[in-house]
Amino acid sequence: MSEAVEQVPVRRGRRPRGADTRAALLAAAREVFSEQGYDGATVRAIAGRAGVDAAMVNHWFGGKDKLFSEAVLQLPFNPNEIVADLMKGDIDDLGIRIIRRFLATWDAQDGGVFAALIRSVAAHEQVAHALRDFFTRHVFGQLAGRVTTDDPALRANLIASQLIGLGVTRYVARFDPMATADVETLAAAIGPNIQRYLTGSLSS
Amino acid sequence: MSEAVEQVPVRRGRRPRGADTRAALLAAAREVFSEQGYDGATVRAIAGRAGVDAAMVNHWFGGKDKLFSEAVLQLPFNPNEIVADLMKGDIDDLGIRIIRRFLATWDAQDGGVFAALIRSVAAHEQVAHALRDFFTRHVFGQLAGRVTTDDPALRANLIASQLIGLGVTRYVARFDPMATADVETLAAAIGPNIQRYLTGSLSS
Repeated sequence: MSEAVEQVPVRRGRRPRGADTRAALLAAAREVFSEQGYDGATVRAIAGRAGVDAAMVNHWFGGKDKLFSEAVLQLPFNPNEIVADLMKGDIDDLGIRIIRRFLATWDAQDGGVFAALIRSVAAHEQVAHALRDFFTRHVFGQLAGRVTTDDPALRANLIASQLIGLGVTRYVARFDPMATADVETLAAAIGPNIQRYLTGSLSS
Repeated sequence: MSEAVEQVPVRRGRRPRGADTRAALLAAAREVFSEQGYDGATVRAIAGRAGVDAAMVNHWFGGKDKLFSEAVLQLPFNPNEIVADLMKGDIDDLGIRIIRRFLATWDAQDGGVFAALIRSVAAHEQVAHALRDFFTRHVFGQLAGRVTTDDPALRANLIASQLIGLGVTRYVARFDPMATADVETLAAAIGPNIQRYLTGSLSS
């Protein structure tokens, strides 16, 4: 049914079609989730911002939770690209590259998307699961699995814990100086700790 | 005015008085904030749980935000006691002792209070400020200030970032194996990273 609706020619200049609809919904979802949080963001508001019918959310994403997951968790980055990028270069500097990448990604959005993510994780079990899968399976599980065979699941969790804590203190609670420190200061301070989680001994 | 109300003899067996009122409100607040989050927890509900008049919240705490701060941020521990306890023993093991103490404190409450704290931080600027003050000034600022004079504010922020991330992954998002790992595994895995933030070089 949604498919039929989608194939009806839309009014010129008002509604995007096909893949454009999907991209417009993702962009709108990122804005609205960032402004309103998961609860406050309605499918209607997101569709309205994208200039498409609300039925398109189900058609393209299968619901608000999956749209959230794609819009906030998987974009603005592709996990496979991240892993491929990060693996370029010396394995001993991987921790520092991870911090640079993390800050470049979230600083660019002024932290609003990260704050929306944390608010949603705290309030919704489903979102917490999505975040967990994203961090542990798609990104850091892959990374940890490439650099060591020694307890990659725990290592992926430890890396996630430091990055989430960095995000909460920089973007949500806005600790001083964490919120204003420059990228290289934080990469030098935190990178080696990420590196230990990746390749160091976890028994003290 | 509140003082006058407080001094009126209360009905036998129903309402606690004086310091008992304060303690009853703190205990009730911890329960209700944990169950409902900051927003959901009303002054009326907390006072009702404590068996006292809602005016007692203003009398003893000056409002819901200050009650929250005392009930959730400052209890179940006293920052001065924590610092004094943690400073006992070898400075080189301080990172491990911090992780043990953090987990002993929050594990005992099954993570509900920590989750309430994070939900509240994400939703309320004021709560975020209270958390920031608590972590940086009262606890880790003091610790970092005792063990080093080299950038104690950044070090306190870094320690807070790792501990908050540990709490979010263990108690809120419940990552696997983070949520179920035993205390000594995590103390050995994370303690040395806290130690580096306390006493190590922060330039890589």
